[in-house]
Amino acid sequence: MSQWPDTYYACIFTNQRSDSGEDLYPLLSEKMMELATSQPGFLGVESVRNDEGLGITVSYWRSREDITAWGQNAEHRVAMSLGREEFYEWFQLRIAEVSTTRSFNII
Amino acid sequence: MSQWPDTYYACIFTNQRSDSGEDLYPLLSEKMMELATSQPGFLGVESVRNDEGLGITVSYWRSREDITAWGQNAEHRVAMSLGREEFYEWFQLRIAEVSTTRSFNII
Repeated sequence: MSQWPDTYYACIFTNQRSDSGEDLYPLLSEKMMELATSQPGFLGVESVRNDEGLGITVSYWRSREDITAWGQNAEHRVAMSLGREEFYEWFQLRIAEVSTTRSFNII
Repeated sequence: MSQWPDTYYACIFTNQRSDSGEDLYPLLSEKMMELATSQPGFLGVESVRNDEGLGITVSYWRSREDITAWGQNAEHRVAMSLGREEFYEWFQLRIAEVSTTRSFNII
């Protein structure tokens, strides 16, 4: 966290997996995660999915423009299209400006 | 979502459960969820934990002041203290102003 800017942007992606794409989804998901981390302005990502297929992925970015550019990435656009057609029953995508951070670590 | 304001605040709580508090944590977690939903300015919450104990809870609030008030709630303060002492190996808490929302629903 020490090298992160004081303010930055969070992309909060809440989603429900459908029953489709059992084979393809993990591959594409991993590929998109790799691709995201190599984009300009990418700061970090946190992702959890439970056994019922409910998932929350929060990615962090240096600027609003970096998120827009990632949304326009050609491979990402194909993946997003498949997301709507195949992978998700529903999703919510929110973009938010982070201004306050508190951390705790037992160690 | 239709009654939500155009801009609002997200409280992004990413956390790793410890091995402690197996009995107490679910009770307290449910209690805090109930309490949060009854606070002024509460808009909604999304919460996921996977089998490895990694969790993301995002709660949504009308204003920054509503989040501050919730952080000062007496019962919540006791729970947060137990969180540090018992329940979590680490956590990150971020407060962010949501400005853009996109939804998709298959139905």
